[in-house]
Amino acid sequence: MEKFLNEVITRNRKYTKKGKVASYIPVLAHVNPTNLGVGIYTLDNQYFSAGDTNEKFSIQSVGKVFSLICALRDSGFKKFLTKVDVEPSGDKYNSLIKLETMDLHRPFNPFINAGAIATIGLISGNSIDERFDKVLSLMKEMTNNPNLDYNKEIFESEMNSGDTNRAIAYYLKGANIIEGNVDHILETYIKVCSIEATVEDMAKAAAVIANNGIKPWDNTPIIKSKTIKTARALMTTSGLYDGSGSFSVKVGIPAKSGVGGCIFGSVPNRLGIVTYGPALNEKGNSYAGLKVMEAISKEYDLSIF
Amino acid sequence: MEKFLNEVITRNRKYTKKGKVASYIPVLAHVNPTNLGVGIYTLDNQYFSAGDTNEKFSIQSVGKVFSLICALRDSGFKKFLTKVDVEPSGDKYNSLIKLETMDLHRPFNPFINAGAIATIGLISGNSIDERFDKVLSLMKEMTNNPNLDYNKEIFESEMNSGDTNRAIAYYLKGANIIEGNVDHILETYIKVCSIEATVEDMAKAAAVIANNGIKPWDNTPIIKSKTIKTARALMTTSGLYDGSGSFSVKVGIPAKSGVGGCIFGSVPNRLGIVTYGPALNEKGNSYAGLKVMEAISKEYDLSIF
Amino acid sequence: MEKFLNEVITRNRKYTKKGKVASYIPVLAHVNPTNLGVGIYTLDNQYFSAGDTNEKFSIQSVGKVFSLICALRDSGFKKFLTKVDVEPSGDKYNSLIKLETMDLHRPFNPFINAGAIATIGLISGNSIDERFDKVLSLMKEMTNNPNLDYNKEIFESEMNSGDTNRAIAYYLKGANIIEGNVDHILETYIKVCSIEATVEDMAKAAAVIANNGIKPWDNTPIIKSKTIKTARALMTTSGLYDGSGSFSVKVGIPAKSGVGGCIFGSVPNRLGIVTYGPALNEKGNSYAGLKVMEAISKEYDLSIF
Amino acid sequence: MEKFLNEVITRNRKYTKKGKVASYIPVLAHVNPTNLGVGIYTLDNQYFSAGDTNEKFSIQSVGKVFSLICALRDSGFKKFLTKVDVEPSGDKYNSLIKLETMDLHRPFNPFINAGAIATIGLISGNSIDERFDKVLSLMKEMTNNPNLDYNKEIFESEMNSGDTNRAIAYYLKGANIIEGNVDHILETYIKVCSIEATVEDMAKAAAVIANNGIKPWDNTPIIKSKTIKTARALMTTSGLYDGSGSFSVKVGIPAKSGVGGCIFGSVPNRLGIVTYGPALNEKGNSYAGLKVMEAISKEYDLSIF
Repeated sequence: MEKFLNEVITRNRKYTKKGKVASYIPVLAHVNPTNLGVGIYTLDNQYFSAGDTNEKFSIQSVGKVFSLICALRDSGFKKFLTKVDVEPSGDKYNSLIKLETMDLHRPFNPFINAGAIATIGLISGNSIDERFDKVLSLMKEMTNNPNLDYNKEIFESEMNSGDTNRAIAYYLKGANIIEGNVDHILETYIKVCSIEATVEDMAKAAAVIANNGIKPWDNTPIIKSKTIKTARALMTTSGLYDGSGSFSVKVGIPAKSGVGGCIFGSVPNRLGIVTYGPALNEKGNSYAGLKVMEAISKEYDLSIF
Repeated sequence: MEKFLNEVITRNRKYTKKGKVASYIPVLAHVNPTNLGVGIYTLDNQYFSAGDTNEKFSIQSVGKVFSLICALRDSGFKKFLTKVDVEPSGDKYNSLIKLETMDLHRPFNPFINAGAIATIGLISGNSIDERFDKVLSLMKEMTNNPNLDYNKEIFESEMNSGDTNRAIAYYLKGANIIEGNVDHILETYIKVCSIEATVEDMAKAAAVIANNGIKPWDNTPIIKSKTIKTARALMTTSGLYDGSGSFSVKVGIPAKSGVGGCIFGSVPNRLGIVTYGPALNEKGNSYAGLKVMEAISKEYDLSIF
Repeated sequence: MEKFLNEVITRNRKYTKKGKVASYIPVLAHVNPTNLGVGIYTLDNQYFSAGDTNEKFSIQSVGKVFSLICALRDSGFKKFLTKVDVEPSGDKYNSLIKLETMDLHRPFNPFINAGAIATIGLISGNSIDERFDKVLSLMKEMTNNPNLDYNKEIFESEMNSGDTNRAIAYYLKGANIIEGNVDHILETYIKVCSIEATVEDMAKAAAVIANNGIKPWDNTPIIKSKTIKTARALMTTSGLYDGSGSFSVKVGIPAKSGVGGCIFGSVPNRLGIVTYGPALNEKGNSYAGLKVMEAISKEYDLSIF
Repeated sequence: MEKFLNEVITRNRKYTKKGKVASYIPVLAHVNPTNLGVGIYTLDNQYFSAGDTNEKFSIQSVGKVFSLICALRDSGFKKFLTKVDVEPSGDKYNSLIKLETMDLHRPFNPFINAGAIATIGLISGNSIDERFDKVLSLMKEMTNNPNLDYNKEIFESEMNSGDTNRAIAYYLKGANIIEGNVDHILETYIKVCSIEATVEDMAKAAAVIANNGIKPWDNTPIIKSKTIKTARALMTTSGLYDGSGSFSVKVGIPAKSGVGGCIFGSVPNRLGIVTYGPALNEKGNSYAGLKVMEAISKEYDLSIF
């Protein structure tokens, strides 16, 4: 398999030049735009990789998957639904339009920024640290990496440049979607975005989701099967923002992307597959990562459709 | 299996009273709102059913699946994408907003009305009859029912009441998304909506989609596998309008609904499953049908997620 | 005064090159884009003009003022308000968005296309000719020109290219804002747009509005004072589409523009002032006409503010 | 004149029961909803009043007129236009939609909340106090009341409940419409809203605007005539939010309303007219105040149209 992965990386590296690294977060603007890597972790505990997989990257919006799992654990699906809907929005990831036009002012889903901020509010915990520690602990378990942490420089850069997210958070406060201290919720949200990981870390975490919440390396169940199904459905309908439909047609893998350049995919009962390529298309998804995902999905028939 | 299906119908019939039959099409307003039925056609050619399955109903928006298949056949995916996108819209099925706000004025997907009308325009054929015959012929094959036809009374009723669809069609003409005679395209669109079928007919057609385009009763391939994957992906992300995300989470079956009361589901490599219940929720999906789908999906673990 | 007008035309002719003639109506695309003229008709029956005032032009949206007067005559303000609101919309002249998002689906005002089409529906009359004749007769009186008529070539060109207006009309039908035959209403609407006049014709009509509904040349009252006030208020808040606010600040004259290149202004109790310059800015208003209006308003202190 | 004013107040007091006092600001919820008063200050320095004119009220959005004057003074119209447009928006006063959809993310006008916050940003001054003092000083001059001040209780109540305004401010920061410290700008904005005045104070200020920027009691010019024309035009097209068009038709006086219950009108070259009635209609304008304005405008022919 690694031979094929290497070929795919080589063949698609040219697409890294068609994208642009996220520039609205100053620190992210300094990453190498030609980076491209892929890792696959199978449920029989094999790991295959190719390309630039030694790089650490900030997970950004991929963190929304882990926040969602924590929120569903703490609040249950029913309460969750009173604050965040589970529908694709058809709008940009940072749009405020539907918050205003919809009767309940509920974010459409937990993977647009508004929904992810509201999701953080559904993780129980009185302090920033308590909520953040829950997400980080879950990720440490899912990546089998006890040293996982957030990057302070990225965190601070995003805290200073996150005006639109701050606008969203205050709007949600005004609409009673989030309660309590807006700054705390926002700080937790950005801390989760700033968690750094490698392709291998993320491929393992994706494998846990592919394996219905059971860590494949020690067969320990850590997430309820129902929660996993919810996460995989949302990754499919909303995981790549307003590019989710096209990704379902072309790739067909439940996945979540982040502006750090990661695409994080879970093929149910088969494997976790993760790409890293920080040059993004105009929808905020990794340009070359999409091409790599598409090629591998076709070769190994990974589409769930 | 039929015992369980009967139980499910009995248990959920109360929900038929929570919905309302579509009233904007006068003829549809006269159907019996308490009707509820389900049919399952497995890939080893068994058929199970329960409830009111003798009724014929107009397929309405379920017809969009068959139009899509014909359009992809005739125009190819690449040309299709220049006229219709494949993203969930987050808006009502008859919304015009995104047509106006998006740069290309392209409908978001082939299952909202705007997209379905544009899809009809991509079926080659110079006359109304030629285009309509292609869709009807495909359906006759997929249902294994050579007598399938449209209902003239419903057709005429919809022709007289379809002002919003006419508005959409002219808007698309003005934006160069459809070409040629608007009235012809619209007439074909409404004729497809007016096709009448039974639960069993539709369960067989759903089984063909579940079986990757191969008729299970005679193993004849009639639709390309790639087209089937596109259809199933779109059914998942956009098949139930602005209720598609919730359906993915709760049921997890690629499906398409129609305001005639049908929900048409295809579980890849397993079975076709179709419910009929004309009382609709506020999003235009069968109220009790959703409940029946959810119960059966849970019992037999049909979710693709 | 004519000396000043000539200077203003000379000084501002360069701006005709910054605009573009309306191209979506094929016939309009052939007019001379460098035309620029102005005419002023005072309430003591003096007429001053400068520039290209011999040209006939189609009045296009300026006709909406005369339709409004006829509709208010026939239906009264109270009934009018049930179908058309009197608020500036903040949107493009041909937008459908607010029709869909507002509870009553009422067009925001009679000067956007949707509102003007609904306004035609409020003129009583069973045939196209009856309604159109009312508007044309009113205009003949107001221009003191019994030979005024519509241009058949322009009318037919617009009938063939008016898909977006047709979309709007059907949408209004579906929302019960207009009743009866959509094609008839649309044909009347376009016929009014196709009426041809000169700067002098229109300056006289503007003077009647400036003179509270009384023809200044024979002191005959032909329009109720209350109707005139309504028209002048709407011209101010909505007469130049989404450029009305800026026009109020810079010019301050109740006015209505048309994509034929006319700006039609009425200074209460003083004069009618009309410019003609078919090269338009991106909002559909005459580029150089705006400059001419602004210069004259400043020189003679014509702003009502 | 006072006899007529008393009659009008008596006749229209019943409408105070049709409105509701603003409840989103807790302190405002405690005012007496049946209050209704009117004051007229003529340019020959006569003052007429009727009804509840001893009450002090917070000026709320009426303060936007004074902020606008200060911003135009400090930044000039040209720079102002780069940050705030002068078009009616057609949307609610606290809407964020057009900020997101418009290319420049510029608020549509200085009288919706977004525009007013951006306007504060255009008043030069490094501290909250410096900017606020400019607005308060201007108001002291215009009201001829050196004791005018803001109400600390209202200010604090609004600071604690202004989440949507905070959202707007951060959105504007993210879009580079405002610069510097968001909290400072917001605090200034809310302090201006919290300024308390009586009907007589405000009638005098309105008279200064009616008198082209010259205080009628001592003939001192304090505001440029061009600034006054801009203010009066904006009051007309946008002063009553999405009720401005209807107000122009029915009343025809350049005016600005506030959720504290004030309507502040300036009839050019004639008088200032101010009503106070805290029970609001669904658009945020004083229910009975509108009726009183309409009656007086008709009686004395105050409409500028």
